[in-house]
Amino acid sequence: MQTVDKAMRLLNLFSTEQPEIGLSELARMANIDKAGTRRLLVALQKHAFIEQNLDSRDYRLGTGFLHLARVRESTFPMASVIEPILRKLTQQTEEAAHASLSSGVETDLLTIGVSASTRAIRVHVQDDEKLPLHATASGCAYLAFSSEERYQTLVKGSLTSYTQETICDLQKFRTHVDGAFAKGYAVSNQTLEEGAFGIAAPFFDALGQPSGAVAIASPVSRMDDEREALFAQLVVNAAIEISKSLGGKVSDAFLLANKERIK
Amino acid sequence: MQTVDKAMRLLNLFSTEQPEIGLSELARMANIDKAGTRRLLVALQKHAFIEQNLDSRDYRLGTGFLHLARVRESTFPMASVIEPILRKLTQQTEEAAHASLSSGVETDLLTIGVSASTRAIRVHVQDDEKLPLHATASGCAYLAFSSEERYQTLVKGSLTSYTQETICDLQKFRTHVDGAFAKGYAVSNQTLEEGAFGIAAPFFDALGQPSGAVAIASPVSRMDDEREALFAQLVVNAAIEISKSLGGKVSDAFLLANKERIK
Repeated sequence: MQTVDKAMRLLNLFSTEQPEIGLSELARMANIDKAGTRRLLVALQKHAFIEQNLDSRDYRLGTGFLHLARVRESTFPMASVIEPILRKLTQQTEEAAHASLSSGVETDLLTIGVSASTRAIRVHVQDDEKLPLHATASGCAYLAFSSEERYQTLVKGSLTSYTQETICDLQKFRTHVDGAFAKGYAVSNQTLEEGAFGIAAPFFDALGQPSGAVAIASPVSRMDDEREALFAQLVVNAAIEISKSLGGKVSDAFLLANKERIK
Repeated sequence: MQTVDKAMRLLNLFSTEQPEIGLSELARMANIDKAGTRRLLVALQKHAFIEQNLDSRDYRLGTGFLHLARVRESTFPMASVIEPILRKLTQQTEEAAHASLSSGVETDLLTIGVSASTRAIRVHVQDDEKLPLHATASGCAYLAFSSEERYQTLVKGSLTSYTQETICDLQKFRTHVDGAFAKGYAVSNQTLEEGAFGIAAPFFDALGQPSGAVAIASPVSRMDDEREALFAQLVVNAAIEISKSLGGKVSDAFLLANKERIK
């Protein structure tokens, strides 16, 4: 099934920043030879998962996802369950709120919902942002309540540096994540972007494993201990609400760590 | 790339009617042996395109689509371009309006937008309906302005009967489609569902080939020649608007056949 794996990897190379990619570039990014890449693209194109820009001959994601996303959402609404909860967080904080999901194998979380801040100076969260696990509050919150096995799978090798604050040392990062586990929520102070402060809590699947995280992102200039305490409480309760709405089972460790915060 | 093809076929077996499917049933539907089906599912699961119901062990579409659909829509908005045009059609007619897309290889069009009728007696269009080409106005409109080659690829073998009115004879169907080409739009009188009347026009891609169709669906009891003429005019102009919004080139044959209707 290596072929399917390669095809899926090709699809995941597209992003809002790079919505159209040429054949050579795709082959290089996916580390597959050009002929193989072309064959995969033709197979994906047949089912409308990939389409070609008729002028430039570059490739882009096709319309097949629109349909499958509709099927998925109409039967297991997730984005639409999460959306009002994010809106409420923004009403309560005037800051950006966002939710993201893990695939269980990738080292990024994928944003599936964003509610923009109402203030002039704000953290802008992209609609389809990828959140590196080790550099975001969402990632730390997710990892803190994941199984040891999953942690070991997802956190290894060299950790990319995004700012001077990104924790790139595996041992230091582990300590940071353990701290999030003890507190019951995670913070990130400018580890992904200078000036941005994140505070996040994980939501859980039916087995009590985190499936993603919900977060509030604020300019660091507006943060202090009092706001951190308030945001922590709001985000923890939002995470519990999301877990329950999606039929998930909130882990006992999470409930215990947050027992003072749960309303 | 047969493997990729099989994996994509598996994904397309899921629908609102059948959102969760067990392994044996999936293998049977896809006509792949069980071991092979399981391997494909594991590969798809790894990238969150498939997930498993933890109780029943049945499979369902994963959350991977939510992200890729967001990337696609944020860079090439299609659903969101089409939505207000459908809403306007419903305002003008009080009937359901919907838009659907072709993958270019499947014999169904996939619904990507629906605007519900405002009347008590209405045609209900499912959010993720699959429209068989030969049994719907959308399908006929799409085929009428497609290349001969595409027509031959998509219309062959035995045509499924849905009602007593479904045209299942290849020769008769060809005549029906030629009629739609001459008129500039297509109608279907209870060919998919008893009591439902459809009227549709294709929209076009940058090469002047149809990529899908926009349609109005009304109870047949409310239809007469006058309403057909009005709906034809509205749907043809909506199709042109959609084509232009998506950077498409409306085919000359379509413009010519509809020259009296274009506003």
